[in-house]
Amino acid sequence: MAISRRSASTGVTLQQVADHAGVSIATASRVLHGSSGRSVGAELRRRVEEAAAALAYVSNAPAQALARSRTSVVGLIVHDVADPYFGAIATGVMRTARAHDLMVMLAATFRDPRLELEYLVRLRTQRARAVLLAGSGFTDPAFVGELGHHLAGFTADGGRVACVGDHGVEADTVTPDNRRGAALALAHLWELGHRRIGVLAGPDELVTVRERLAGVREALRERGGRLDPADLAAADFTRAGGRQAAGELFRRRPDLTALLALNDGMAAGALAALREDLGRAVPAEVSVVGFGDLPYAQDLHPALTTVRLPLERTGERAMELILDAPGAVRRTESLPVELVVRTSTAPAAAPTR
Amino acid sequence: MAISRRSASTGVTLQQVADHAGVSIATASRVLHGSSGRSVGAELRRRVEEAAAALAYVSNAPAQALARSRTSVVGLIVHDVADPYFGAIATGVMRTARAHDLMVMLAATFRDPRLELEYLVRLRTQRARAVLLAGSGFTDPAFVGELGHHLAGFTADGGRVACVGDHGVEADTVTPDNRRGAALALAHLWELGHRRIGVLAGPDELVTVRERLAGVREALRERGGRLDPADLAAADFTRAGGRQAAGELFRRRPDLTALLALNDGMAAGALAALREDLGRAVPAEVSVVGFGDLPYAQDLHPALTTVRLPLERTGERAMELILDAPGAVRRTESLPVELVVRTSTAPAAAPTR
Repeated sequence: MAISRRSASTGVTLQQVADHAGVSIATASRVLHGSSGRSVGAELRRRVEEAAAALAYVSNAPAQALARSRTSVVGLIVHDVADPYFGAIATGVMRTARAHDLMVMLAATFRDPRLELEYLVRLRTQRARAVLLAGSGFTDPAFVGELGHHLAGFTADGGRVACVGDHGVEADTVTPDNRRGAALALAHLWELGHRRIGVLAGPDELVTVRERLAGVREALRERGGRLDPADLAAADFTRAGGRQAAGELFRRRPDLTALLALNDGMAAGALAALREDLGRAVPAEVSVVGFGDLPYAQDLHPALTTVRLPLERTGERAMELILDAPGAVRRTESLPVELVVRTSTAPAAAPTR
Repeated sequence: MAISRRSASTGVTLQQVADHAGVSIATASRVLHGSSGRSVGAELRRRVEEAAAALAYVSNAPAQALARSRTSVVGLIVHDVADPYFGAIATGVMRTARAHDLMVMLAATFRDPRLELEYLVRLRTQRARAVLLAGSGFTDPAFVGELGHHLAGFTADGGRVACVGDHGVEADTVTPDNRRGAALALAHLWELGHRRIGVLAGPDELVTVRERLAGVREALRERGGRLDPADLAAADFTRAGGRQAAGELFRRRPDLTALLALNDGMAAGALAALREDLGRAVPAEVSVVGFGDLPYAQDLHPALTTVRLPLERTGERAMELILDAPGAVRRTESLPVELVVRTSTAPAAAPTR
């Protein structure tokens, strides 16, 4: 949005005021146009106001009002709007937004980091009041750097930012405790006697995948085990990916007695693979654990043992962080998770193949 | 939003224009600044424009440009963002929006008609370029009248409107062929020999429910049958609703050999009820058909026979209607559906209870 920086009445520009006061144009703007964002100290404020008075600067009221007013829109960026994982987060976000009379603009990146940046630019242009990043973060450092740059611009304009999950940027963050969840899932299988556990993981560039994998490794280490690379298969973080990865794992390791899938979609695919492609009975021959407890997990066959994530609450909490005044330091909150035991897990059978 | 009422170039105020035209300042603003709100009749508009010309009123360009310009935002109103039915429609909408460089603002009404109206007002205020109504319409005439009024205001301002599913209003509409789908489901059960078929329906005030029910009745009539009110149970259009309605139906009619659920969520609930509450084997004792073919339908136990709706395509098509120039007459398109036969249906068993 082009903002006129020239005073309508006197022709004095904001730049002239800033120069006269010896401050940046951004600081001058904050003082004179009341833009939200970082507050300006009393001394700077005084200098700017004196400069404006000295130069008879009159701010262009309509343009300033428009420029200053943030819309009542909160941008929510997710990966895939058809994924019930994001649907649950969005439900929490929208419920809290509604209670505060804000509207949510939802954008889906379909896991394309470039689209995430593009949406950020557009939300900034449209003067969204806040942005919530709710896809899993990407781990590529070049991307994270660029993302941080865009977010800094957004907050410099007075916008608020929060993340669901670690995006590697300086923003308030709320995240389900992925490490702990993965550790709970591994411990459950371990207690059932499983020692040959295959792990179905999503793409390594997703922070969520790394966190959950770290939890699995940690829990194994605590028990004197370790994750053999042959017991790990990465694929799309979807049902199709889970089906493919399960087939791959059993070709390499036909003696696995359990699969730990890093999301419920992959677990659903693994169950389909075991039933339809591999002819293994669940849980008699192979136990399966998922991650998420999405609504369909209870209806899978057999009903899926999985890690329940407080997704709606995570969305609500992220919105609450946005509504709070920005803190002096970045806040990071980790929400508790729990294991839901259903019928897809059972004690490990004695090796038969 | 505070707008300066003084013309930057000529010093003539909006109040002077309003006085000259004999209208309120709000009306003058509506005509000259294209503010949102109630539309202004032709006669008032003419008077205001003539007054502005007579007084050489020049609107404040930056503010007016901002106020007048439509944003690149398309509002999409659904019932429930966590419902994969709407997720699939939204995916189609967003894909097409993306191809045309538009952003989608998604609002969820949680099936509250008042919220639908409220969001419409806000989207209009925010000068959204278009609105897509993608919840199932409500049948209450008072609501439909008010909805039509709000949509007329939106289009009078130059906004575009389209509906997914019949909302009873004058807007381009695209809808999956619900009647035909219901007829296909009924015909499938009939051909398998089922004559005692229970129907699980959602709330009667949803247009989708009425259309599907009409398709069932029609297909029954064609076969010389009819839908006994005792064979119909209405509940929430959800898994919980389906579970409850299935229990209710079997208490009334323990000899039913098939259930036709009007959406997949209800079918999932019916399967749970038959398995866990009623102890009936599917499909040996009872066949179950769903409606929608949402992603989880294939993973239900047994895999659900259901009506596949082209949901993503429906969303795409609705966006395409919005991008087209408005037609002289309202367009209504019905997209083809198909039956997907899986393992939840089988020939009717001879009566044993």
